[in-house]
Amino acid sequence: MSQPPISRYPTPELADLPQDIRERIAAVQEKSGFIPNVFLTLAHRPDEFRAFFAYHDALMEKPGGLTKAEREMIVVATSGVNNCTYCVVAHGAILRIRAKNPLIADQVAVNYRKADLAPRHKSMLDFAVKLTAEPWLVEEEDRERLRRAGFKERDIWDIAAVTSFFNMSNRVASATDMRPNSTYHRQAR
Amino acid sequence: MSQPPISRYPTPELADLPQDIRERIAAVQEKSGFIPNVFLTLAHRPDEFRAFFAYHDALMEKPGGLTKAEREMIVVATSGVNNCTYCVVAHGAILRIRAKNPLIADQVAVNYRKADLAPRHKSMLDFAVKLTAEPWLVEEEDRERLRRAGFKERDIWDIAAVTSFFNMSNRVASATDMRPNSTYHRQAR
Amino acid sequence: MSQPPISRYPTPELADLPQDIRERIAAVQEKSGFIPNVFLTLAHRPDEFRAFFAYHDALMEKPGGLTKAEREMIVVATSGVNNCTYCVVAHGAILRIRAKNPLIADQVAVNYRKADLAPRHKSMLDFAVKLTAEPWLVEEEDRERLRRAGFKERDIWDIAAVTSFFNMSNRVASATDMRPNSTYHRQAR
Amino acid sequence: MSQPPISRYPTPELADLPQDIRERIAAVQEKSGFIPNVFLTLAHRPDEFRAFFAYHDALMEKPGGLTKAEREMIVVATSGVNNCTYCVVAHGAILRIRAKNPLIADQVAVNYRKADLAPRHKSMLDFAVKLTAEPWLVEEEDRERLRRAGFKERDIWDIAAVTSFFNMSNRVASATDMRPNSTYHRQAR
Amino acid sequence: MSQPPISRYPTPELADLPQDIRERIAAVQEKSGFIPNVFLTLAHRPDEFRAFFAYHDALMEKPGGLTKAEREMIVVATSGVNNCTYCVVAHGAILRIRAKNPLIADQVAVNYRKADLAPRHKSMLDFAVKLTAEPWLVEEEDRERLRRAGFKERDIWDIAAVTSFFNMSNRVASATDMRPNSTYHRQAR
Amino acid sequence: MSQPPISRYPTPELADLPQDIRERIAAVQEKSGFIPNVFLTLAHRPDEFRAFFAYHDALMEKPGGLTKAEREMIVVATSGVNNCTYCVVAHGAILRIRAKNPLIADQVAVNYRKADLAPRHKSMLDFAVKLTAEPWLVEEEDRERLRRAGFKERDIWDIAAVTSFFNMSNRVASATDMRPNSTYHRQAR
Repeated sequence: MSQPPISRYPTPELADLPQDIRERIAAVQEKSGFIPNVFLTLAHRPDEFRAFFAYHDALMEKPGGLTKAEREMIVVATSGVNNCTYCVVAHGAILRIRAKNPLIADQVAVNYRKADLAPRHKSMLDFAVKLTAEPWLVEEEDRERLRRAGFKERDIWDIAAVTSFFNMSNRVASATDMRPNSTYHRQAR
Repeated sequence: MSQPPISRYPTPELADLPQDIRERIAAVQEKSGFIPNVFLTLAHRPDEFRAFFAYHDALMEKPGGLTKAEREMIVVATSGVNNCTYCVVAHGAILRIRAKNPLIADQVAVNYRKADLAPRHKSMLDFAVKLTAEPWLVEEEDRERLRRAGFKERDIWDIAAVTSFFNMSNRVASATDMRPNSTYHRQAR
Repeated sequence: MSQPPISRYPTPELADLPQDIRERIAAVQEKSGFIPNVFLTLAHRPDEFRAFFAYHDALMEKPGGLTKAEREMIVVATSGVNNCTYCVVAHGAILRIRAKNPLIADQVAVNYRKADLAPRHKSMLDFAVKLTAEPWLVEEEDRERLRRAGFKERDIWDIAAVTSFFNMSNRVASATDMRPNSTYHRQAR
Repeated sequence: MSQPPISRYPTPELADLPQDIRERIAAVQEKSGFIPNVFLTLAHRPDEFRAFFAYHDALMEKPGGLTKAEREMIVVATSGVNNCTYCVVAHGAILRIRAKNPLIADQVAVNYRKADLAPRHKSMLDFAVKLTAEPWLVEEEDRERLRRAGFKERDIWDIAAVTSFFNMSNRVASATDMRPNSTYHRQAR
Repeated sequence: MSQPPISRYPTPELADLPQDIRERIAAVQEKSGFIPNVFLTLAHRPDEFRAFFAYHDALMEKPGGLTKAEREMIVVATSGVNNCTYCVVAHGAILRIRAKNPLIADQVAVNYRKADLAPRHKSMLDFAVKLTAEPWLVEEEDRERLRRAGFKERDIWDIAAVTSFFNMSNRVASATDMRPNSTYHRQAR
Repeated sequence: MSQPPISRYPTPELADLPQDIRERIAAVQEKSGFIPNVFLTLAHRPDEFRAFFAYHDALMEKPGGLTKAEREMIVVATSGVNNCTYCVVAHGAILRIRAKNPLIADQVAVNYRKADLAPRHKSMLDFAVKLTAEPWLVEEEDRERLRRAGFKERDIWDIAAVTSFFNMSNRVASATDMRPNSTYHRQAR
């Protein structure tokens, strides 16, 4: 396959996209050196694109009680449970970069229970994985475990919100056969 | 319990909220006669609130190949699989209203396979439920079944996107013990 | 659908039924104002009908350590796990009546862990749901938890027996596509 | 253990039991040469005892489209899925006797898919096992498969009813730690 | 069926087999009075045959901290979880012989939680069954439970290794429809 | 962590190992440039070490109907289902080398259904994954699908045997917390 499609939907021409979306894509391309396929896949739906990335940025980029590496750990663990190729590979790369650790993404994606994690991070991922796999079982006791691990109420919200957002994102990727850019596979190894 | 809390997080005072959020809440209150608890639960995070409802409206309110009743069927089936009390009850009410059918929400929430559904809707919910429960198993053959049931490519996107969004929403509700307004239980019965 | 069938089996004429079964049906009709479809579905098998209702009454109607509302909670939780439309809807109505609580049936059917339940009832449903979903895992420790919640040996028998009976009943309903009377959906809301 | 208890509940004295229950127990003892523990476990609840065995006999003893060996195959397959020691062992013995086949019970209990079964029996157990494990998935197509295998409507009812009854019985046995009589283990080997 | 095939692969002629394999088969036949079908099924692959039985003997025959009966308990519990007819039946017979207990194999195969087991053996099988069903969940805490039950580090290795080996063996048997010799069903009852 | 342990068991001194095992380890070290941790973990049990690698080589190194890359695909897919960190990472590297494809291992480990695979390989992994996750469901129809994809009887044996062997290997690794050499993570990216 010389150039496999990036998803089951046609890739729009950049020139045909609304101005704000073109600018957002140009910005990520400048920063990363390539356009992550999720931008191109969502772009044919401008309103959804805007809401998706506004939500993403509110959860993943703003200051808060969780470091960016911690947020990416949640993304990779969640995506591992959902067996989502796009998100495991793309966010695996981002996690390696954020955590400055070339091994952590593979470890968390395959089985976070055996990863080189501090107890705080083990607790955080216990919660994220339970909320992903069996959300109906999450109870006050689970939140209490997070508090005992040192998380504040706003952090618990963040853990839950990041997990929830990527449960959406994983399904958009799976439903459309979204393909990670090849670059991600080897980044920061 | 005279007045049980609407979630595990404190309910913000309306007066303390940003202007645009106050206005959005006032609008829904005027239309529905009450403020759905999801608005009050999310309001302490203005950026997330804005992104959540922008996304929601892009998927649930815009014109498209799926009727509003069909979109709510997807929400109720998804929320049933995730055993999400808030979403089954609140969107169950909305589905009864949209479909003008007092029985359909209970049927779809408990077991859509036994519901009074046209074959088109059975196919639509087969896809939504598979994408919810085992997203990694969704393949081209599943999309092909939707096409055979008369759905167009843009409709398949919509089915997938609505399912995905409520997989997020179900988890936010479960993680925070969000409580449906009592009114929903008896609406449009 | 003007009048959808009540099950996959033909509905017998009342006049053709044995005297005792006709009388039992007349009695329930007088009390409820309608004939619950389970009576009509089982009636073509008089011996099974008699045993089913004798068993039902021995478990659900006799005096004992569990209130009638508690027994119906078990039925609704069990039927929710088994995704049984007939039993969730019909016994949901009965639970609302018995518990004088318009919200409880929806809460217990979707996810009893988030319902407005006293700790005693939470423990009771923990046992019922485990016995329904993974009966082989029930051990002395599970019975011990019920004792700590205040249940006596005879109550534990009752919880187990009601759960077991409706695991039968749920399957008869699912195998025959038994349909709940429409009245149940709106009763006691 | 010289004489392990037959269940978690005290065994009643035969002399203390109601006349009809004593007679029923005497009859089974005369026929089998021993009293199956299920009779002794249920006897402290006379009304449940009567209903249970009336139901059992209506399903397992009456003439019908299924042979007695076929009914016992259903019992053993169902009990195998539910990992119910009492029912696998006791009904395993009865199946060996009814089918005049010393191997069939072990085969069906462990994995009916690999058992020495005629296609008719494979189809019958496909239905029983699906109804046991995931009753909500049973649809018209499953009944249609039984028809294609030669079963009539009344036979489909019987398959469903026997499966359902033993889903109850398995749970009563599991919840009470009912122990099979040792004799069953070696009968008809 | 006068003589059903022992697997989906042709049974090799003894005379055509390499000398060492012929001798190994002659030895087991002399000891057992028959040739277990696993020897005949594997014999057409001499290198795999040699490695399989060398591994088997290293785990099951050598002296060590676990008795031979304990090792067979692990095999039967593992094979029960994997619903492997060959291994449940053949190793069930061996367990009855090793443990000098005619009931134990049926009990362990159906549900070891309800078997007549010392606490040490219950702990041992808790570990084996978890490692079989969800190996990724095994953590230091599980090993710690074995230590508290009196097992040494080398015993934990043995429990894990026997469980692992039969997870292989169960799958070879299932993939090839390997059939247990009829003799096993009635041995040591 | 400067040098995390390679497993929960002490690493033996090479000098203390039997001659043949030392030689085998020296050979792999010369070929790979490092000693894979599985050799060091198993070495304290010489008989098991010898049987394990004899079996491994019989399945993975000998000529046959499956290429070495195909065999490694089976290993990676199996290990992905079992969430085995050691095997996904180590055999992921070997698969990248054998298949001369830097993307294939991540794709197969996360979700082979979305990997860049020929239909032959998709069928092969369908079988391996079913045999891993639910071995009791494998039936003649599954073997028939492999034949239709062009596999011969001896190839079906090989697919089953490789899958089975790594179901053992995955559990040994999980039970002992075996850690992949860091080198594997970045090999052949």
